[in-house]
Amino acid sequence: MPKPSLRDTILDAGLKAMFRTGYHGTSVRDVAAVAGAPIGSFTNHFRSKEAFASEVLERYFAHVRLLVAQALDDTSLSPRERLQRYLDIITGRLEADGFARGCLIGDLSLEASGSSELLRSQLEAIFAEWRVPFAACIREAQAAKEIASDFDANELADFLLASWQGAMLRMKVERSPAALERFKTIAFQTVFKEPS
Amino acid sequence: MPKPSLRDTILDAGLKAMFRTGYHGTSVRDVAAVAGAPIGSFTNHFRSKEAFASEVLERYFAHVRLLVAQALDDTSLSPRERLQRYLDIITGRLEADGFARGCLIGDLSLEASGSSELLRSQLEAIFAEWRVPFAACIREAQAAKEIASDFDANELADFLLASWQGAMLRMKVERSPAALERFKTIAFQTVFKEPS
Repeated sequence: MPKPSLRDTILDAGLKAMFRTGYHGTSVRDVAAVAGAPIGSFTNHFRSKEAFASEVLERYFAHVRLLVAQALDDTSLSPRERLQRYLDIITGRLEADGFARGCLIGDLSLEASGSSELLRSQLEAIFAEWRVPFAACIREAQAAKEIASDFDANELADFLLASWQGAMLRMKVERSPAALERFKTIAFQTVFKEPS
Repeated sequence: MPKPSLRDTILDAGLKAMFRTGYHGTSVRDVAAVAGAPIGSFTNHFRSKEAFASEVLERYFAHVRLLVAQALDDTSLSPRERLQRYLDIITGRLEADGFARGCLIGDLSLEASGSSELLRSQLEAIFAEWRVPFAACIREAQAAKEIASDFDANELADFLLASWQGAMLRMKVERSPAALERFKTIAFQTVFKEPS
């Protein structure tokens, strides 16, 4: 396996730090120290803390894209089952971190979108892109009469992803999967229920 | 009107700072400066930044309790209408801040619950208390056949408050009420719909 570049090592250290103490609580100096990089090397790679956070976020979302594809491209499942599969995959990831870490996209949405216009507009673009495969899957489920067609698929996709962020928020406080399981149970028996 | 105490002035400055840059991004020195308080006065009033944040949070939740009572104690409305009224009252408050500020309880849930056990357990207690009047109102709505009784009222109350946090998270990124209105529309025509 090739040795990760110093740049990647710094970005990994930044992700860990931002998960722990957020954007404002992350010090460039500490990240560089954890990555074993001289501070001059950090500033060679990233022109500001904000630009650095933006790259950490982009890398994180690249990872989320793979998880989305893993669930929503799985044609062995029905469209409605794929949506549930996604939430189950994420639940498994969150469990591996003891339900103490949520989603960096949600974390930065609340913490950094007020003070960094760069991050705010990036987060807006991320949510817009994130919605697309979910809306397509919901549209497919509606066409197959697996989900009612009372609402536009884009609206339902945004509802699903936003409410799931709320469930992860509660999970983080309670350090338990209860809010995740509650969301899945209620949402899939109401908003995303199979029409009778 | 009596002059607010220095303690109150410091707490108000702390709330504003935490709304802007979160718990980790708030400096005790800056809060004291904004409040016009010598740093020694700050440390006389609060034994640590963590204890200070805990008081800011408690004061904030005291304010939320009043908004909850304003909506859920309004017996001129049906129980289901009271739930909607609460979300509308909050929407009005968020609009007054240009949809740039969300809920401090949600903000600290994502940002501070991982690094402060004091704040995490306080947030857990807040969510547990917050649920009570909502569960009572939902139970009343269920008894009046305004809302289906497929789920326990406690579960529905937690679902409502958690998903609403998710909607506020999206609002903050988009600086728009779209996610709030989407949540209200979809939730009250599905999870909280009137049984036909």
